[in-house]
Amino acid sequence: MNSYRPSPAHRFTFGLWTVGNPGRDPFGLPVRDALSPVQIVKLLGDAGAYGVNFHDNDLVPVDATPAQERRIVSDFRKALADCGLCVPMATTNLFSDPAFRDGAFTSNDPKVRAYALQKTMRAIDLGASLGAKVYVFWGGRDGTETDAGKNLLDAQKWFREALNFLCGYARDRKYAIKFALEAKPNEPRGDIFLPTTGAMLAFIATLDRPEMIGVNPEVAHEHMAGLNFTHAVAQAWDAGKLFHVDLNDQAPGRYDQDFRFGAHNIKSAFFLVKFLEDVGYAGSRHFDAHAYRTSDAEDVKAFARGCMRTYLILKEKAAQFRADPEIQRLLAEITADDGAMDRFQGRFEKKKAAALKGHKFDRAALGRRGMPYERLDQLVVELLLGVR
Amino acid sequence: MNSYRPSPAHRFTFGLWTVGNPGRDPFGLPVRDALSPVQIVKLLGDAGAYGVNFHDNDLVPVDATPAQERRIVSDFRKALADCGLCVPMATTNLFSDPAFRDGAFTSNDPKVRAYALQKTMRAIDLGASLGAKVYVFWGGRDGTETDAGKNLLDAQKWFREALNFLCGYARDRKYAIKFALEAKPNEPRGDIFLPTTGAMLAFIATLDRPEMIGVNPEVAHEHMAGLNFTHAVAQAWDAGKLFHVDLNDQAPGRYDQDFRFGAHNIKSAFFLVKFLEDVGYAGSRHFDAHAYRTSDAEDVKAFARGCMRTYLILKEKAAQFRADPEIQRLLAEITADDGAMDRFQGRFEKKKAAALKGHKFDRAALGRRGMPYERLDQLVVELLLGVR
Amino acid sequence: MNSYRPSPAHRFTFGLWTVGNPGRDPFGLPVRDALSPVQIVKLLGDAGAYGVNFHDNDLVPVDATPAQERRIVSDFRKALADCGLCVPMATTNLFSDPAFRDGAFTSNDPKVRAYALQKTMRAIDLGASLGAKVYVFWGGRDGTETDAGKNLLDAQKWFREALNFLCGYARDRKYAIKFALEAKPNEPRGDIFLPTTGAMLAFIATLDRPEMIGVNPEVAHEHMAGLNFTHAVAQAWDAGKLFHVDLNDQAPGRYDQDFRFGAHNIKSAFFLVKFLEDVGYAGSRHFDAHAYRTSDAEDVKAFARGCMRTYLILKEKAAQFRADPEIQRLLAEITADDGAMDRFQGRFEKKKAAALKGHKFDRAALGRRGMPYERLDQLVVELLLGVR
Amino acid sequence: MNSYRPSPAHRFTFGLWTVGNPGRDPFGLPVRDALSPVQIVKLLGDAGAYGVNFHDNDLVPVDATPAQERRIVSDFRKALADCGLCVPMATTNLFSDPAFRDGAFTSNDPKVRAYALQKTMRAIDLGASLGAKVYVFWGGRDGTETDAGKNLLDAQKWFREALNFLCGYARDRKYAIKFALEAKPNEPRGDIFLPTTGAMLAFIATLDRPEMIGVNPEVAHEHMAGLNFTHAVAQAWDAGKLFHVDLNDQAPGRYDQDFRFGAHNIKSAFFLVKFLEDVGYAGSRHFDAHAYRTSDAEDVKAFARGCMRTYLILKEKAAQFRADPEIQRLLAEITADDGAMDRFQGRFEKKKAAALKGHKFDRAALGRRGMPYERLDQLVVELLLGVR
Repeated sequence: MNSYRPSPAHRFTFGLWTVGNPGRDPFGLPVRDALSPVQIVKLLGDAGAYGVNFHDNDLVPVDATPAQERRIVSDFRKALADCGLCVPMATTNLFSDPAFRDGAFTSNDPKVRAYALQKTMRAIDLGASLGAKVYVFWGGRDGTETDAGKNLLDAQKWFREALNFLCGYARDRKYAIKFALEAKPNEPRGDIFLPTTGAMLAFIATLDRPEMIGVNPEVAHEHMAGLNFTHAVAQAWDAGKLFHVDLNDQAPGRYDQDFRFGAHNIKSAFFLVKFLEDVGYAGSRHFDAHAYRTSDAEDVKAFARGCMRTYLILKEKAAQFRADPEIQRLLAEITADDGAMDRFQGRFEKKKAAALKGHKFDRAALGRRGMPYERLDQLVVELLLGVR
Repeated sequence: MNSYRPSPAHRFTFGLWTVGNPGRDPFGLPVRDALSPVQIVKLLGDAGAYGVNFHDNDLVPVDATPAQERRIVSDFRKALADCGLCVPMATTNLFSDPAFRDGAFTSNDPKVRAYALQKTMRAIDLGASLGAKVYVFWGGRDGTETDAGKNLLDAQKWFREALNFLCGYARDRKYAIKFALEAKPNEPRGDIFLPTTGAMLAFIATLDRPEMIGVNPEVAHEHMAGLNFTHAVAQAWDAGKLFHVDLNDQAPGRYDQDFRFGAHNIKSAFFLVKFLEDVGYAGSRHFDAHAYRTSDAEDVKAFARGCMRTYLILKEKAAQFRADPEIQRLLAEITADDGAMDRFQGRFEKKKAAALKGHKFDRAALGRRGMPYERLDQLVVELLLGVR
Repeated sequence: MNSYRPSPAHRFTFGLWTVGNPGRDPFGLPVRDALSPVQIVKLLGDAGAYGVNFHDNDLVPVDATPAQERRIVSDFRKALADCGLCVPMATTNLFSDPAFRDGAFTSNDPKVRAYALQKTMRAIDLGASLGAKVYVFWGGRDGTETDAGKNLLDAQKWFREALNFLCGYARDRKYAIKFALEAKPNEPRGDIFLPTTGAMLAFIATLDRPEMIGVNPEVAHEHMAGLNFTHAVAQAWDAGKLFHVDLNDQAPGRYDQDFRFGAHNIKSAFFLVKFLEDVGYAGSRHFDAHAYRTSDAEDVKAFARGCMRTYLILKEKAAQFRADPEIQRLLAEITADDGAMDRFQGRFEKKKAAALKGHKFDRAALGRRGMPYERLDQLVVELLLGVR
Repeated sequence: MNSYRPSPAHRFTFGLWTVGNPGRDPFGLPVRDALSPVQIVKLLGDAGAYGVNFHDNDLVPVDATPAQERRIVSDFRKALADCGLCVPMATTNLFSDPAFRDGAFTSNDPKVRAYALQKTMRAIDLGASLGAKVYVFWGGRDGTETDAGKNLLDAQKWFREALNFLCGYARDRKYAIKFALEAKPNEPRGDIFLPTTGAMLAFIATLDRPEMIGVNPEVAHEHMAGLNFTHAVAQAWDAGKLFHVDLNDQAPGRYDQDFRFGAHNIKSAFFLVKFLEDVGYAGSRHFDAHAYRTSDAEDVKAFARGCMRTYLILKEKAAQFRADPEIQRLLAEITADDGAMDRFQGRFEKKKAAALKGHKFDRAALGRRGMPYERLDQLVVELLLGVR
């Protein structure tokens, strides 16, 4: 069991808003006492986390005076140092305040758009001052309930201008910070703009400085749309854009659940961990989840430990997968390549195309070949169940 | 009513496989007689369509001899000329044959990948010879049921190589053809790679010749994932990548329904038509739909006419929206901009940032301002219901 | 337009919590001022509603003193009388208080179960005293996030006991009140027990006094599970159990949206209205919806008026459907019955079965017959769009 | 590993259509050779199954002559005897034939309704002659794409009459057979009537002989609607109506996948097995699933073995759950009951109600109590992962 003890080397991080979640939901009042940032840092340090992330107002209330802010930040720094935690990521709350009811960077109100920009610059300053290396953008309310009221092209233009502006700002300030865009399909808006990790990756390509910007895929947000999260992560990785990742769990086609990592679908969590470990992802494993509303303070700690333990158990399973001779034999069979097609592969050449067009394939034989995916998948299930 | 009569100027197109669909489904046998391509062309010409599209094997059976192919194509050309139809788009069937059971460009079998490439080159030749200006890629089976058996990075590499190769091929042949990638989240595979229009747009940015490649968003495919289709189309348009569009309808979170355009959600169909007409989209309005399996041949014609009529009715509603003074007054209120924020907008400048950071916003006042979206949306509903 | 003016005869009702919704959501603070019950009654009276419904604590805060309660109720009665409104339905809030974090009648804590029973008896007293004829049960939190922690059979037993007890209570008090169970599949719990109207109808059959208990189907709750709401209502009607209905709208597979009636899917709203009017449903048309969070107070009124106007427009369309000769001709064709099969129908008789078993059907002919559902559905779409 | 070897005592059954599935889907042709019923029986016998189930036409083609039917059935009986298999369940194919394009018992065509009744009587005869104890009803096409064309009340009436007639028929023939209704929300129809197990249970209560009729819940069918399958099974069990169960797996909100049992969601499969074993369900564990279309014949066998092995592994985990002291300690804490509320429980009594209404609850204390569901659920995850 000790092998599942988290250490800073595992780069497990939590947001202040996760273990600090008081359990309010659309139908009910808070059930747990609010924790101060310092209390949360201590809780996470005890649990073995590597870092703690925050929205600006998780740490500093929106109406704090400068003196209050200095005091809060100073206490927070001290707690971080005491507990050996760092701040790998920061972000801005652009959704709680009634001012953002129609979105932030894409609000139809130009004053709100400007205020969102101001608030984000200040939050970037705060994040950078605490050492954050990644800055996450999740607007939250940039979307619509009715498409009658918002010009979709203006909305994209406004969002693009804001990101370009903020890239300029971060460069001007010489912040060693990268931006990561987080997609979500809906909730709290009927439809949120750029609803998937794919849409965000595509949007980055239209920005002035795409190299500064990547994505922060979140399990729950792709699952809400019934999409395969590992596939989304693989596309981001393939594009060199996996700057951060939000781990939690979620049943498809439901409200935003933010369940403990692995709590809904063990198998999809496994393929995700396997992918991250196989490719050598070196960033934070950030848990953007919260305990059930039924939990008390003690159960919140169990929730946090559970996120990390499940990751570590699945990491061990991924190593077993790589070492399992039967699995590897099946994979070798599945991906066998006798090299006969090599001459048709790679970059286009006129004579390569001619040769390929003239090649005679045995279509019926190709159609007779099956793939032992049931065998392989059953071995994975049994590996996961610990009976191999 | 006459105003809803389709004409070639409306650029309505159908696939051979749509009105020709014999009504087979996973649980039942065909219910309608197969129609020949020539019969379908006649049916579509009578109905007022502009063009007809096809998969290679919709027109030429996979095992046709060269002589048979020549005869089929010749008959088809004659029918097109007789009926005044053109072929704006063509594509390849990479999914029916058992050879493609594990995908085409991303099959784990290198021979299948090579065969898919060969088949696509030939199909491009066929499409180009019939004047197609857009070539659509929908692999159909490029995906997984279990992520144990396919290397997600290899799959992306293979798909990228295939597209780069085919761009080279089309350039070499001097075909005046553009490629359009079509996304689908699942069915017939458990998860299909690059499952959304956004993911496809992002993938294009990783190709050698992104300028040759755009997207072909399909209503049903985004709806299957519960996503707002008009938002996806708007992102494609914003990126200059809306090369084609597949119109039909679909309830979210279900099997692929390919219903008559507007048959499921009138309001979302309206916002789509409004967007396409507002921005001046000049491409095909392609109906990738089929009649209910309960339909007989006469009802199939009603289905085809219905697709076009509903589009034209909604196009008229879009014009009414633009002309409605109450709607326009609300929109003016919603998007009002007194210019006070202009000095904070546009490209980043150091002093602009400084000015914005120092600006004092009245946060409470921003939060008090509501937007009359209920009023606006109710007007849209009443406009759609024909009571304004 | 005047024909769409609501009057009490239309039996339109709203909950205090609907137009009174201050716009709080999981990601944001309230955006609108709280309205007192008296203010809401006035708003609804002005808008043309027939009645107003409430949860106990919408009207009387949970910690009100008896004197405060008397005052509140007295003011409320006066407002009702002044505005000509009645209270057709009441219910209990069994979800906001942290005490109900694990459910009410099915909480694992026996004290919470007892408290829920007490609270409901008191709320029934309150509802009955104000003339409510229907009492709705929506537990809200009776469900699970993990099935490890709750015995599913105990949960059903506890819920059954509570309902049986409360039937006994209502009978003992001689309240002229019927109970209506409201199903919801999830949110705020991961899975809520008895998640569909069908499940509730089935559960009623296991109670001591099924005749006292019916259902309160809600559009959004069936739509969340992607189910056809009108089909659920038809099953409830068929069983004589449609005691109440909650009207709103909702995209499938998402968080609980409670949109304005007809705001998401005009066509499904039409079939619902048509069904209710065709069968002569005489109960409340209760709008359990709220305005977008972007709305200000004025827009909330537009929201309320819109719910009723859309219902009345669709009611008029339903009458047009019945009067449309082309539609009726198609329906006559579809449902044609020449009586030849009459002798095989009805109750089982030995010789009827023998005759039917011996009858020779022309299977191929049966298979050739199509149904003109595309034609019919297109006519409905055009009727809805106001172009017939 | 031997402990996961299936034996007839485990009551594992498969349909002829499951391991016999040739891999046709909406987008592709069959990929595997058809197997004869005798071949399938042998395959299942070798794999350790207890029984084999069928649709009438899985065994006897619809156009077989009486002589052919006798021969087929005789061969089948012999194979069953040779392999030690029985036929616990039978059903009718009411969906493949074009005649059923608008449904069977609820088709708008009275001849089709009568033909469906005839076909079902004959199929019941066939099933009974082979010893089936359960007869499953899954109409398949009893539903709509548009609600314009079918009277929902007539459809329920027709379905009710058919079931009542068939109950009469089975009684008259003295068949020792029970009926089990199987729900599905959609596919191949847009919406299928009585879409959930709950709806079916409710419908049974409206039949003449409800005692003869129960349900056959299917994992995939509830999952398609995003519903918790174990909850549906628990309701059926509670009502004494769990006559059969169809095991497979399915991602929510997608086409009908019929995956290998446990292939999608290990945790939900565990809670299902645990429930069935805890309550002592004695019926068939019927796998209504099929191998991936990528599978060859060998992989189909692995698929069948995998279904059974996963069930047996999870059954062992369920025993571990019951024996785990830490889990049981948490459960005892969660369900603790000091008896203080006993006097308020049970059947209604006037003085019990009075006592309860007068009892003073400490609402704040109730709200402070949390439940250790995160701890418990994490233990379950670790038990499933084999690290406890």
